[in-house]
Amino acid sequence: MDERVREHAEVLIDWSARVEEGDDVVLSVGPDAHDLAVAVAEKLGERGANLLATYSSGEVTRAYLREYDGEFDEPAHERALYEHADVVLSLGGGRNTSAMADVSGDTRQAYDTARAGVREARFDTRWVSTIHPTRALAQQANMAYEEYRDFAYDAILRDWESLAEEMGRMKDVLDGGSEVRLVSGGTDLSMQIDDRTAVNSAASVAYDSHNLPSGEVFTAPYATEGEVTFDVPMTIRGEPVRDVRLEFDDGEVVDYDAEQGGEVIEAVLETDDGARRLGELGIGMNRGIDRYTDTILFDEKMGDTVHLALGRAYDACLPTGESGNESAVHVDLITDVSEDSQLEVDGETVQRDGRFRWEDGFEG
Amino acid sequence: MDERVREHAEVLIDWSARVEEGDDVVLSVGPDAHDLAVAVAEKLGERGANLLATYSSGEVTRAYLREYDGEFDEPAHERALYEHADVVLSLGGGRNTSAMADVSGDTRQAYDTARAGVREARFDTRWVSTIHPTRALAQQANMAYEEYRDFAYDAILRDWESLAEEMGRMKDVLDGGSEVRLVSGGTDLSMQIDDRTAVNSAASVAYDSHNLPSGEVFTAPYATEGEVTFDVPMTIRGEPVRDVRLEFDDGEVVDYDAEQGGEVIEAVLETDDGARRLGELGIGMNRGIDRYTDTILFDEKMGDTVHLALGRAYDACLPTGESGNESAVHVDLITDVSEDSQLEVDGETVQRDGRFRWEDGFEG
Repeated sequence: MDERVREHAEVLIDWSARVEEGDDVVLSVGPDAHDLAVAVAEKLGERGANLLATYSSGEVTRAYLREYDGEFDEPAHERALYEHADVVLSLGGGRNTSAMADVSGDTRQAYDTARAGVREARFDTRWVSTIHPTRALAQQANMAYEEYRDFAYDAILRDWESLAEEMGRMKDVLDGGSEVRLVSGGTDLSMQIDDRTAVNSAASVAYDSHNLPSGEVFTAPYATEGEVTFDVPMTIRGEPVRDVRLEFDDGEVVDYDAEQGGEVIEAVLETDDGARRLGELGIGMNRGIDRYTDTILFDEKMGDTVHLALGRAYDACLPTGESGNESAVHVDLITDVSEDSQLEVDGETVQRDGRFRWEDGFEG
Repeated sequence: MDERVREHAEVLIDWSARVEEGDDVVLSVGPDAHDLAVAVAEKLGERGANLLATYSSGEVTRAYLREYDGEFDEPAHERALYEHADVVLSLGGGRNTSAMADVSGDTRQAYDTARAGVREARFDTRWVSTIHPTRALAQQANMAYEEYRDFAYDAILRDWESLAEEMGRMKDVLDGGSEVRLVSGGTDLSMQIDDRTAVNSAASVAYDSHNLPSGEVFTAPYATEGEVTFDVPMTIRGEPVRDVRLEFDDGEVVDYDAEQGGEVIEAVLETDDGARRLGELGIGMNRGIDRYTDTILFDEKMGDTVHLALGRAYDACLPTGESGNESAVHVDLITDVSEDSQLEVDGETVQRDGRFRWEDGFEG
């Protein structure tokens, strides 16, 4: 076994999920994530935690959903499992990232809706989602398998403690600020963040962060004005999307176009009122991720990028008891800020051309 | 997908587990049983049952157990899962039947002991264990993969309704009888079965039978006298065992020898007092199983064989409230009765040279 698989397991158990002796752990295993499951099982044994492995296969779910006819029930046994679990570790890694391509959106949505209680119980644990670098994910990223493994482990095996500290600086700037302005090619956008709290997403439940890798600082902006161009290509709802431009007035999208995938953007914007407003401003700070791979788990954390999401805001960013932007969707779009860019908070530049003001090479 | 995989799924769901709409089903999937899991998921969808898949990997369990240090806990989340489940379907099919070979017996036993509540909750559901024919099982059976699949589906895809009816005749004979005598090469053995109830193990929870394939009628004998030779070779505790001969007096083994594996037999007999007495007499009636494959799930149901188990008796065979032979072990040994053999109940021959008295070709 590649030693990095064991290191991945160790980061997941100790840094991300903070597993302790006696914890009841659910380990969700993708069909090609077996090796990581073995490494995680070793560590769970060492820590004296209890282990139940579930099997997470798009092909099994597809077969089930396509034959299901009628109303979906909430499965009481699955809900009971999560209600009694302390930790849920999801090891993504299927054999085909399009395994569920021929399941209708309506069916998926009905299934998800019926399982709201299961999801809630799961989110009530110390849950962490990660992926095992598989051939299917390498293919999705347009990379050779070995190349993709190097890429994935560069992103996952960071010095998280030191990155958390650096991201803490960015969080402090956002928490103390009122207005953010982003200037880049095709972008001059301002947003209000007064009263909002940024999340230092450092790939650990101790930071309210549930993805490994992570490495972003995000908040929930409002009253957006100006225009923004997203130059990082993505796949949204199965459609390639490229160079989306959005124009905001009084917090809402008033105009848009796209080099490719304009129809998907239109569909997103028409979902509901909240889909025309921003739910998230995120600053990607994981420089172990140095290229786009069409997997949101990685792309939105890429160093020297900024992403904005249309739709739902995270409660963690809002004053207690207050609700932010609400929507059925949360669609991230990403822009490169490594060149000819600057990010200002209350008129002071925090990042210019990919360098933060606390870094060598920053020109204020 | 081989159409037999879908037929297997259908027998499992409808005949064996009697799955109904709204049932909460746990599907335990071995790493190489994926195709059967997909076929079962289709059928569960059709039936409107709820599905949670667990991952049952010897390699994952091995990794966990080898690193675990200290007392095992009972996992509350796993117990809650089974307590809320209606049906548990186990699809065996690993990549290596020796995957746990280097986990010590003490560790396995401590793990099993801590999980008694989980096991009990699982046995309280409509549970059924089956296997998906894998390369590892083909290898264990000394067969080519394609050959093994034919073998496995011949055993699994029976006309179960008609076999259940035929086995019912055997059950009636045993239930009405007091003494069984088995005569064959190296065997002349008599046992008492008065007051005991035979189980018609017809591969369905409706018959209190939890294996697919099944196809045996068994009861719990006592007061065994005489000698018996088991000519079907087996692997017991990892050791090959061949031509075991046991001599009984007043219900207990008083002498034994074996062509091969005598030490394993000695270890079994020395476990406890109950290990020297019989816990089971089983009549193999599944003629789809026509050869020995060193897998007890198949071997003990082989047509024209009789098996006896040293050790623990099943409660189902005993008068209500009475306990039968007790032991920490239950070790099956098998003898071929297809030639020069007869099985008598109260002096009347029920089976001679592999033919039952209700069959053509039986010579009474």
